[in-house]
Amino acid sequence: MSIIRVGCELRYRVTAPTSFLFNVAVADTTHQVVRQEHFTMVPQNEYTVENIGEEGNRIVRLQAKVGDFSLQYQATVTLEPEVDDPPTIMEAEHPELPSEVLPYLNPSRYCESDRLLRLAGKEFGEIAPGYSRVAAICDWTHARLDYVAGSTDARSSACDVLVQRAGVCRDFAHVALTLCRALSIPARYVSGYAVGLNPPDFHGFFEAYLGTRWYLFDATRMAPRDGLVRIGTGRDAADAAFATIIGAATLKDMTVSAQELTDEIAAQPTGDEPAISTA
Amino acid sequence: MSIIRVGCELRYRVTAPTSFLFNVAVADTTHQVVRQEHFTMVPQNEYTVENIGEEGNRIVRLQAKVGDFSLQYQATVTLEPEVDDPPTIMEAEHPELPSEVLPYLNPSRYCESDRLLRLAGKEFGEIAPGYSRVAAICDWTHARLDYVAGSTDARSSACDVLVQRAGVCRDFAHVALTLCRALSIPARYVSGYAVGLNPPDFHGFFEAYLGTRWYLFDATRMAPRDGLVRIGTGRDAADAAFATIIGAATLKDMTVSAQELTDEIAAQPTGDEPAISTA
Amino acid sequence: MSIIRVGCELRYRVTAPTSFLFNVAVADTTHQVVRQEHFTMVPQNEYTVENIGEEGNRIVRLQAKVGDFSLQYQATVTLEPEVDDPPTIMEAEHPELPSEVLPYLNPSRYCESDRLLRLAGKEFGEIAPGYSRVAAICDWTHARLDYVAGSTDARSSACDVLVQRAGVCRDFAHVALTLCRALSIPARYVSGYAVGLNPPDFHGFFEAYLGTRWYLFDATRMAPRDGLVRIGTGRDAADAAFATIIGAATLKDMTVSAQELTDEIAAQPTGDEPAISTA
Amino acid sequence: MSIIRVGCELRYRVTAPTSFLFNVAVADTTHQVVRQEHFTMVPQNEYTVENIGEEGNRIVRLQAKVGDFSLQYQATVTLEPEVDDPPTIMEAEHPELPSEVLPYLNPSRYCESDRLLRLAGKEFGEIAPGYSRVAAICDWTHARLDYVAGSTDARSSACDVLVQRAGVCRDFAHVALTLCRALSIPARYVSGYAVGLNPPDFHGFFEAYLGTRWYLFDATRMAPRDGLVRIGTGRDAADAAFATIIGAATLKDMTVSAQELTDEIAAQPTGDEPAISTA
Repeated sequence: MSIIRVGCELRYRVTAPTSFLFNVAVADTTHQVVRQEHFTMVPQNEYTVENIGEEGNRIVRLQAKVGDFSLQYQATVTLEPEVDDPPTIMEAEHPELPSEVLPYLNPSRYCESDRLLRLAGKEFGEIAPGYSRVAAICDWTHARLDYVAGSTDARSSACDVLVQRAGVCRDFAHVALTLCRALSIPARYVSGYAVGLNPPDFHGFFEAYLGTRWYLFDATRMAPRDGLVRIGTGRDAADAAFATIIGAATLKDMTVSAQELTDEIAAQPTGDEPAISTA
Repeated sequence: MSIIRVGCELRYRVTAPTSFLFNVAVADTTHQVVRQEHFTMVPQNEYTVENIGEEGNRIVRLQAKVGDFSLQYQATVTLEPEVDDPPTIMEAEHPELPSEVLPYLNPSRYCESDRLLRLAGKEFGEIAPGYSRVAAICDWTHARLDYVAGSTDARSSACDVLVQRAGVCRDFAHVALTLCRALSIPARYVSGYAVGLNPPDFHGFFEAYLGTRWYLFDATRMAPRDGLVRIGTGRDAADAAFATIIGAATLKDMTVSAQELTDEIAAQPTGDEPAISTA
Repeated sequence: MSIIRVGCELRYRVTAPTSFLFNVAVADTTHQVVRQEHFTMVPQNEYTVENIGEEGNRIVRLQAKVGDFSLQYQATVTLEPEVDDPPTIMEAEHPELPSEVLPYLNPSRYCESDRLLRLAGKEFGEIAPGYSRVAAICDWTHARLDYVAGSTDARSSACDVLVQRAGVCRDFAHVALTLCRALSIPARYVSGYAVGLNPPDFHGFFEAYLGTRWYLFDATRMAPRDGLVRIGTGRDAADAAFATIIGAATLKDMTVSAQELTDEIAAQPTGDEPAISTA
Repeated sequence: MSIIRVGCELRYRVTAPTSFLFNVAVADTTHQVVRQEHFTMVPQNEYTVENIGEEGNRIVRLQAKVGDFSLQYQATVTLEPEVDDPPTIMEAEHPELPSEVLPYLNPSRYCESDRLLRLAGKEFGEIAPGYSRVAAICDWTHARLDYVAGSTDARSSACDVLVQRAGVCRDFAHVALTLCRALSIPARYVSGYAVGLNPPDFHGFFEAYLGTRWYLFDATRMAPRDGLVRIGTGRDAADAAFATIIGAATLKDMTVSAQELTDEIAAQPTGDEPAISTA
């Protein structure tokens, strides 16, 4: 069990009345329990918290007036992940997959798995199915992509990134999860906070459905997996934007933080940690 | 009220044990009531009916052995659509949209609405919001695209189709619904049966969320909207494939039918029918 | 006849020995006569002037050492374009096209004319062939695209720009010339200096082959056509980069200028100037 | 020295007066000498033979009337390639490249080398420059792509093929030559006849400029390199289509043949043959 404090501050210049959806609040699940959380808005503003999407992401929804607007969020969560031994984790056969995970085999905006069937088959078809095959996908992704800030934009999909061989965390997650889907392994995107990320920022990683549950993976190796705190879950980053803006607002400044209050989290990701599930 | 009998027969050659998901059974909703339905499989085969996806599409799920396999489906439905007068139907402002429709503003595999913000703004930004604006999108799509069988394939997205200016029903639906999303109008794909389609086939159309409900649109003008029978609903055609095949099977032959048993359905689509909602 | 003085200064930081190709020297043709020109390099550097490509672009070629390096170029040219009356200019039939212009019907990196046959046919197929049809393509391009600095990058092709509906001068040229090729009108890219451009910069425009010669067009309407001074000519911008760098060098600063010394050039482009040919 | 007889017959249904460019006649160069050639047209038709493009491809140009039209071509060529020992062949440094090969470093329609700089660097940047590096590119391409008839179409570019991992001969050539360009090795597409191709067809391969000349490579390994007979040379397949059709004509039937009359040609390609240059 570990206790993690996370937070962010987002400061906007609003130039016309704007409808905001913020997806920065952490998820509250069996394995990730929210002990305390707090929103502060300057100026004060009415808001609602709603659940949206297939996984019920918690969205802070509000309408901001013209002027400066900032949202500050702070939470403390307890992580008690299900920890399993990788060699014991098999891939489920397609007939065994529960119906609620089947949509995560479909291609999505940034994850055109339909285009990568042959590539996935050629690169990973000979590897024994199971947790280690998804780990091999992460290794492959990590080896082939350079992490380069600014190398991609909001239009870049997994196929684009595979061609240009560079991206940021969301691109690493998109590439790896798309390869999973192309092998008939359900996979989905997770946005979150991450202990040990340098520089601190929101993070993007993914889950693959193996055996009977969702396991966390991070192809960037930039943060230990047991320090990942889930915010949103979806088919790809399009479902988990930290802010959706309908109107006219400019992000002036953003800070993100995540600190462990206990001392349980792996200091450095090695790619060899145990299998972790928090869904 | 109209009564429609629909059906299909799908005949496969299965060359390895194969897991099938069939999405050919009609939806059962307040406005589309299933009076009777029947599945026949040759050879007989165990199957389950499951609901998947955000809208609970009814899936027939089974494992077929090597050999010939055919599925025959037949159903009778009563359509009692909500019928509204187009000029009375407004677009909902973003803050008014219920949280369950918000995911239908996100881009998806075949509907890259994030890339079309400027095109949609330039072509439709000056048109008064409301039902008539979505109708204008359908007119625009119909005027710009040629319906050409075989001109697209399973990889073709709305942007591809806008460039090549040709497609089939699913492409017309993708283009029009993507333009809706780019204008912040929630929109989603619907697969179905259609009275009057020539040659008979499965059909693809779409829904836009206006006022307080989902309205049906069909940019192909190939079938009257009051003769559309819903099968699956999703973000785009990736969520509503009539058959998903994991294994090795070849479609040898397919027939699809839809006949009206009453005499209420518009003979020819004109683009000027009243607004119809069956969701 | 008009006399124009053009020039540029390009200042680099070279961090490894670097091979440069500069395509900034003006073309010397029957209709564009170089009266005087001068290169200055700091530090002094050996260089050769070579002709490359189908149209013999004049390239300054050199190897720069590590350190600061700047190239200054200054030239005076006399423009005596062939001026024709637009209604008298027909499109050549395909059998009449001289063999040397046929390659300019082929698609190229940024001009995928093979993908736009149907779009071009639907939008321009009913317009009478001739100079006025190419002018109509320029009007159409100008109306549909926004000129937005930074909206495209070195990967953006005509099809990309048609989808996103924004670009800079090279994108406007690519879109319009691609549409010409899709209608079987040979068309090619021209880089140059332009009198009256604000802010001053290198410019990109295009030529279409009509009747028996190449005519200049500029879909941006940012500079009068009779003030366009040709540098490079090619299939698209890939053939006319002002600098090609093999090694490691960063552009620190660039200035470009073009002033008329006579008083013959149209003050403002209107789209209705006479037809001009300088090839 | 080997003597090869090649030929083709192309039979069309012409439904409107049509302008044809046929690029099926073999090139006549120092190393590939045309001993005899013959064109037969049914019905008889006037034609011209013209040279087009940067490398002077020999084009048969004609206008066909409505009705059936067939072109039969037959030629005998003597191949006396320059044969070199691979380890002696270096890559030229950029400053040493003659100006006429520089355009073959530019990206083209099907060869977006600008998008593959990082991939090429990561995969081949550590390999010693020279003939063997291009051979390694061919091996890599051959290992990663499946040869699948019908898997690509006239729009498929090198980047598309790298994603989908399947293609035909022109796609193999596009991928390999694009990787060369991305490493600053000039490379170009060659269409031709090939002894030993099964089934017989036109073939597509490529040349890379190394040392002081162009060397032939074939990433498909479907035919021995010393049995390749050049037809057209260009930036990519867009410059070397065997038939360009402006009008309305349908190819009904096509046969292609290539037989060796001597007995000098390697029976099976192994990837280890000596370096061959015929340009």
